[in-house]
Amino acid sequence: MDRLIEKVLEFTRERDWDQFHSPENLAKSISIEAGELLECFQWNNEYDLEEVKEELADVINYCILLSDKLGVDYKKIVLDKMKKTAKKYPVEKAKGKSTKYNKL
Amino acid sequence: MDRLIEKVLEFTRERDWDQFHSPENLAKSISIEAGELLECFQWNNEYDLEEVKEELADVINYCILLSDKLGVDYKKIVLDKMKKTAKKYPVEKAKGKSTKYNKL
Amino acid sequence: MDRLIEKVLEFTRERDWDQFHSPENLAKSISIEAGELLECFQWNNEYDLEEVKEELADVINYCILLSDKLGVDYKKIVLDKMKKTAKKYPVEKAKGKSTKYNKL
Amino acid sequence: MDRLIEKVLEFTRERDWDQFHSPENLAKSISIEAGELLECFQWNNEYDLEEVKEELADVINYCILLSDKLGVDYKKIVLDKMKKTAKKYPVEKAKGKSTKYNKL
Repeated sequence: MDRLIEKVLEFTRERDWDQFHSPENLAKSISIEAGELLECFQWNNEYDLEEVKEELADVINYCILLSDKLGVDYKKIVLDKMKKTAKKYPVEKAKGKSTKYNKL
Repeated sequence: MDRLIEKVLEFTRERDWDQFHSPENLAKSISIEAGELLECFQWNNEYDLEEVKEELADVINYCILLSDKLGVDYKKIVLDKMKKTAKKYPVEKAKGKSTKYNKL
Repeated sequence: MDRLIEKVLEFTRERDWDQFHSPENLAKSISIEAGELLECFQWNNEYDLEEVKEELADVINYCILLSDKLGVDYKKIVLDKMKKTAKKYPVEKAKGKSTKYNKL
Repeated sequence: MDRLIEKVLEFTRERDWDQFHSPENLAKSISIEAGELLECFQWNNEYDLEEVKEELADVINYCILLSDKLGVDYKKIVLDKMKKTAKKYPVEKAKGKSTKYNKL
């Protein structure tokens, strides 16, 4: 993962794009790319795997850039959040249900 | 990264949530969480770092689940996409510009 | 407004697209088009008015289709929601502030 | 429709919120609310009509504010866009198909 992060940052550095990458602009970019990913599933489930892979990659790419810009560890924030989510969705209450925590 | 992916999958497995995780539902979930991340920047730039970290973690979490569901390698798809993007945005043309490739 | 709604529905009818317009698919479409609208503002504020108009029109178009599909009145739901929002954001508390109601 | 637009603008004026409503912030708001609307359909089709109505109303509300801020006519931009879309999707080619125009 560290090597991937380094590659992503290098890509940006070579193009001098860091000036555009405020946290706000990166958050917008994640939403924009998430919309393009969703478009692969707009009318039905018969998605084109190559397109989905590319759009998902774009989302991940901006997530990496945002975590770097915020100065946080890409993996640690996910682990930390999982601990919080585990409290909202304890196994015995949430098992087999898609219900939101405030309605569980 | 592999350990993180394993942790995320285990969390889902324990709760028997895999039944809800069609590629389409995961793509919707990425868009939904991206919207919550964007909400941290809705009216200005003075974001709350803790909130941003949590919302970003939610986006990454669903990206991990989607890549697993598609049977693709989380890191490889980003590297593959970077190669395509590099052709659309060659350093000499794109340097210091935020212009979209079709207007470069 | 009634004439506009009628025009939008006729456009769909002529193309036999109603079969694709489940409430869920229309909700996805609104998110997808909202992402394209946001792309007009991805890196800065210097937007292209023609592009913004077209993307905004796409969002509105799907909002009209969804309200029709749900069998609700396009204007009434906005007025009804304003009454609820007015309670969450009373003038004396919310005036001049962008703070979310749960932090007011 | 004109009365609805007037009501929406009055709501904003009373709260002195116009200062937050740059086109960019309104575009972000439309994406954020579109995400909340999509959340009503995150895991299945069994939506709660009251929730869907409220989230759709929020999207429409920000669309009205953005069209006003841009100085464009809410209904006209939809009609204008329909003319463009009609060319991309002529009835004889698009009838009964959900295919995107560039693949038709």
